[in-house]
Amino acid sequence: MEFYDQVRSTLKHVSKHIAAVKINYPLLLSLGPDLTSQLLHETEVVAIADLKVADIDNTSKWIGRQAMEMGFDAVIAHPFVGYEKGLSGLISEVSTFEGGVILVVNMSHDGSKQFITPVAQELAAFAEAHGADGAIAPATRPDEVKQARKWLGPDVLLLTPGIGAQGGKPGDAISAGADYEIVGRAIYQSSNPADSAEEIKNQINKTLQT
Amino acid sequence: MEFYDQVRSTLKHVSKHIAAVKINYPLLLSLGPDLTSQLLHETEVVAIADLKVADIDNTSKWIGRQAMEMGFDAVIAHPFVGYEKGLSGLISEVSTFEGGVILVVNMSHDGSKQFITPVAQELAAFAEAHGADGAIAPATRPDEVKQARKWLGPDVLLLTPGIGAQGGKPGDAISAGADYEIVGRAIYQSSNPADSAEEIKNQINKTLQT
Repeated sequence: MEFYDQVRSTLKHVSKHIAAVKINYPLLLSLGPDLTSQLLHETEVVAIADLKVADIDNTSKWIGRQAMEMGFDAVIAHPFVGYEKGLSGLISEVSTFEGGVILVVNMSHDGSKQFITPVAQELAAFAEAHGADGAIAPATRPDEVKQARKWLGPDVLLLTPGIGAQGGKPGDAISAGADYEIVGRAIYQSSNPADSAEEIKNQINKTLQT
Repeated sequence: MEFYDQVRSTLKHVSKHIAAVKINYPLLLSLGPDLTSQLLHETEVVAIADLKVADIDNTSKWIGRQAMEMGFDAVIAHPFVGYEKGLSGLISEVSTFEGGVILVVNMSHDGSKQFITPVAQELAAFAEAHGADGAIAPATRPDEVKQARKWLGPDVLLLTPGIGAQGGKPGDAISAGADYEIVGRAIYQSSNPADSAEEIKNQINKTLQT
């Protein structure tokens, strides 16, 4: 089966168990922009462009425009690069398409403790100040999800990567205040992605009932 | 003229005045990976993938592999995401292709003063510690280029964006210790990119002679 058909089939089967799909650069570059756009239009799942935008205004603006034109609903960016003549370009451009901006308050891997954790509270303040629609915090460290929720207040959607391959347990981040848990390899590398997605969804729901 | 032909023509005419070409995501996504690869193979200019990689190991590894397979010689990444299970993936993957890794010590825009400048010295130490082939510092702030050169020592190539559209003056960054100055819009948006590139090159050389 062609790679595009594989991806579409996986997404189609998984879609009833997920709230949205997050597509990163490796997949975007493997498919190319045209097939990515086709995928988004054919599957009609809410789609987040996980481009970790971290560039100057002119470049971040173009990346935002391209993501919106491909059919993404929101874009993930790094507030670490700052606003003035930086993410300002992305934020204003995406808003003209009524798209969402999701800002990284902290990440799921060990290395994020080095430079990001020490300023995570300021990054959360940046997200609030610039009207972010969502924020990213690590499902691998539920205590930091709890902190992020406190810093952000109740209105910013809190999305938490790191479930599965990276070690986060389904349900822990949502119990700590997240709105959504992000699962990558534990679904798409599974021999049956739909079953894995359903099982993880059920684990999350079970945690919430206890 | 088709977009690809425009890009190839510009690069071909400019190539004798430049040391390398830096290609960012907006251009990569406009061309798509296949035409980007074709461009690099047809023009044989040293090519830097300005992907500002800022992701976890598995993702950064794949981005590095894809850039190398397209024919890029080096990739730009953000050390602020940290090494462990972060840029570790990119750095080890790119080295298997004998490609270069260029790390951002600081950026050229105002917003970079917010979170990056306070840790620029640590980001430079990261670049040294992990064997970066090159580093990025802002041509728009030559004093910070001077600092970066001091922190990095003489062996790391220092590349400095921000000449032209962003306000940096040709020659200032190299006078402050940079190896190369990066020029974007002042060349590619010029009515005659080759003439503009030559003029900027001459301005740099003139500064160095005084």
